[in-house]
Amino acid sequence: MTKVHDEVLKANEAYAKSFGDKADLPMPPARRFAILTCMDARLDPAKFAGLAEGDAHVIRNAGGRASDDAIRSLVISHKLLGTKEWFVVHHTDCGMETFTNEIMRDLLRQSLDTAEIGPDGWKDVGQGPGSTAGEAIDWLTISDQAKGVAEDVARIRAHPLVPGGVPIYGYIYDVRSGTLIEVPEATAAGKA
Amino acid sequence: MTKVHDEVLKANEAYAKSFGDKADLPMPPARRFAILTCMDARLDPAKFAGLAEGDAHVIRNAGGRASDDAIRSLVISHKLLGTKEWFVVHHTDCGMETFTNEIMRDLLRQSLDTAEIGPDGWKDVGQGPGSTAGEAIDWLTISDQAKGVAEDVARIRAHPLVPGGVPIYGYIYDVRSGTLIEVPEATAAGKA
Repeated sequence: MTKVHDEVLKANEAYAKSFGDKADLPMPPARRFAILTCMDARLDPAKFAGLAEGDAHVIRNAGGRASDDAIRSLVISHKLLGTKEWFVVHHTDCGMETFTNEIMRDLLRQSLDTAEIGPDGWKDVGQGPGSTAGEAIDWLTISDQAKGVAEDVARIRAHPLVPGGVPIYGYIYDVRSGTLIEVPEATAAGKA
Repeated sequence: MTKVHDEVLKANEAYAKSFGDKADLPMPPARRFAILTCMDARLDPAKFAGLAEGDAHVIRNAGGRASDDAIRSLVISHKLLGTKEWFVVHHTDCGMETFTNEIMRDLLRQSLDTAEIGPDGWKDVGQGPGSTAGEAIDWLTISDQAKGVAEDVARIRAHPLVPGGVPIYGYIYDVRSGTLIEVPEATAAGKA
């Protein structure tokens, strides 16, 4: 067992020991909302948005993008589990701003191993084999933070399975201060 | 502003006030691992797996499924941000076990409003219009918990952009006890 694997299981054991009355939480989110945000390690949505277990759905992917899969999750969240308002939260210093589809496809063609970023951008240092399978994938990179949030809110808003009555708010989380900064054009586009 | 919207901003203000030394966290996850899990409101991966801000990537969707988008995120996580082991965590009492593609498509055809579940299964009670757009979507439902985890680990393991050296562990989180229960056949399939 690796160190990380062991640490996760030990942390889980401690958590389960003090689980208490959380055993009775129902499946639908008590506060009836959902957050779509980035997988970035610095973001803890429960902490930055004040969520207790049972409060809200949290959907996360690379960039917090409104991918088809994120929309699948949001539609299930509303249709079956009753959420009534949604937040889309991207963040400053996002990895998705450091590359393009072209760069990612090139890097993966060279090697699947972890690349390095330097003053001249991404550079492949891997020894292992590469693959051309990255060419069929849109990596959903971000070129402008506010524009990215506004685009994602607009994409969700326009989806045929998203009912008009669900408001969608657009925010950027500042990783240097922990603050949520509203993207007014996104929230406006997301108006119910 | 809705009550929830206001509460989230107030909770965020309090979080940002005690942000402290988290301002300097780097982009790559310090503990070099990622967790793919469900959006379910009862799950707090930071708590059940012992994560501090900056530690690990967290990817979440309806079911914690190995969708194309989850794999996009995992590949970025390893290739650009250096994670070296991954956990796939589904959970007991998952909403994804309560329906099928056929049921979801029927429900959405009738109305986009929130449906209700009763002893005879899902029933539509909405007044608003429906849509046939759900028919083009695979909702990625789950019929067997352990099988679902094993399938997802195997799908990630077999993906051409996932390097052989990354171990993938399969777990089920018990929402009644907070405990992570290993799915041995999944972890075996995910062996590096």
